[in-house]
Amino acid sequence: MKKINTNLLRQDERIDDLQINNLKIIQNPKGFCFGIDAVLLANFVELRKNEKIIDLGTGTGIIPILMAGKSKYNHITAIEIQDKVADMAKRSVKLNNLDSRIKVLTMDLKDATKNLEVNTYDVVTTNPPYMHPKGLLNPEDMKSISRHEVKCTLEDVISTGARLLKHLGRFYMIHRPQRLVDIMYYCRKYKLEPKKIQFIHPNFHKRPNLLLIECRKAAKSELKVLDPLYVYDDNGNYTKEIYEIYGRKNIEKGVE
Amino acid sequence: MKKINTNLLRQDERIDDLQINNLKIIQNPKGFCFGIDAVLLANFVELRKNEKIIDLGTGTGIIPILMAGKSKYNHITAIEIQDKVADMAKRSVKLNNLDSRIKVLTMDLKDATKNLEVNTYDVVTTNPPYMHPKGLLNPEDMKSISRHEVKCTLEDVISTGARLLKHLGRFYMIHRPQRLVDIMYYCRKYKLEPKKIQFIHPNFHKRPNLLLIECRKAAKSELKVLDPLYVYDDNGNYTKEIYEIYGRKNIEKGVE
Repeated sequence: MKKINTNLLRQDERIDDLQINNLKIIQNPKGFCFGIDAVLLANFVELRKNEKIIDLGTGTGIIPILMAGKSKYNHITAIEIQDKVADMAKRSVKLNNLDSRIKVLTMDLKDATKNLEVNTYDVVTTNPPYMHPKGLLNPEDMKSISRHEVKCTLEDVISTGARLLKHLGRFYMIHRPQRLVDIMYYCRKYKLEPKKIQFIHPNFHKRPNLLLIECRKAAKSELKVLDPLYVYDDNGNYTKEIYEIYGRKNIEKGVE
Repeated sequence: MKKINTNLLRQDERIDDLQINNLKIIQNPKGFCFGIDAVLLANFVELRKNEKIIDLGTGTGIIPILMAGKSKYNHITAIEIQDKVADMAKRSVKLNNLDSRIKVLTMDLKDATKNLEVNTYDVVTTNPPYMHPKGLLNPEDMKSISRHEVKCTLEDVISTGARLLKHLGRFYMIHRPQRLVDIMYYCRKYKLEPKKIQFIHPNFHKRPNLLLIECRKAAKSELKVLDPLYVYDDNGNYTKEIYEIYGRKNIEKGVE
């Protein structure tokens, strides 16, 4: 077993084993740690050989790292506005020896179309903040920035993704069903036509609390609503579908 | 048992018993006969006392007649562009002695905001044509007009509904999931904010083929995705939920 280079760790951080292709990730338990959302999104994304991918608001880099484990022939750019978090992502990429395939940039996504080449990416992925900023939020707090639209709005994410993609490029996002109207409205507005949507329910009896969406830039309109995905069955165990996505070992260890 | 006034019937027409509050409907089996859609929509609509309701593109009047069976204290206007079909609806209203509560008007819905008072209705209901007109369609064919956007588009239906409704009035529609993006986009455009959506699946293993939506004019944005509704169970019988909506007697008679 290869020794992990702990020089890559800063105070309060730890290394979590993703249990997929020996991938690891650096996280700070006091900050925002990845959840099932990132795993579902990375699983939902369809990748073809040699595609150019960009992940908007990458956080600790979980989605690019999981995608790198899915396919060996892609080049992934990942942008993150928060210095410290982008730095963690860079160190996780190093830790996994993925430097040649994943490039993490500290960048406000609102500057992405100025700093990066537009109309060139095959795939955009994003797990953006879900919530409207409400009440008193510390705009510099790492968790607030990951969860609330403090630094960027849903419209910013969609409009930026649309401009970066090439013609018929694919946009993959995970979000909340409460925001479905906003999602549909802005996607149509920026010519990212929603083609597939899947609702994720906590169990068979609960309303969906997440949705996955695939859009194609400038495609014709026709939406496919996929079968719903249920996380737990009636006995409180993960469903077969979630087992397949996560891998049994992972679930038994309780990584989530 | 009261004798049915068959003077109200024209050639090729028949009277179907709706098995709900002794309601009947006149249909022409060569034309468009109502389906589960109308029943689901009428069931989905929430009505309060003394509300002013309008049904856009009422066809044979099935939705107003079913709604009249749900609540006794409403006034319903129903508009239909096709002369012959509107005439059937008028005779069905007469047949059910609902003349004082349901008023059927032969009218193009694109003229509705000129002919009727805007900003006054509490509730709009509609089961519009689902499909984009494709290929060769006879623009005067009754079935084509009911199924395809020959005489009006989805945007016409939504914009008209929005103008007729009063502030915070409710808009209820049944449509196809393939058109979800169009629905969300136009609803937001015309300030009919989607508040509830329910997907209808043919069975537990099939993707949804219908959706029900409730919007509120000028409401704030927050969508609730309701539990999916399944029509058949794994044994090929109607599910409990559908039994409750239809009434057992009705189903056993195969009225659909």
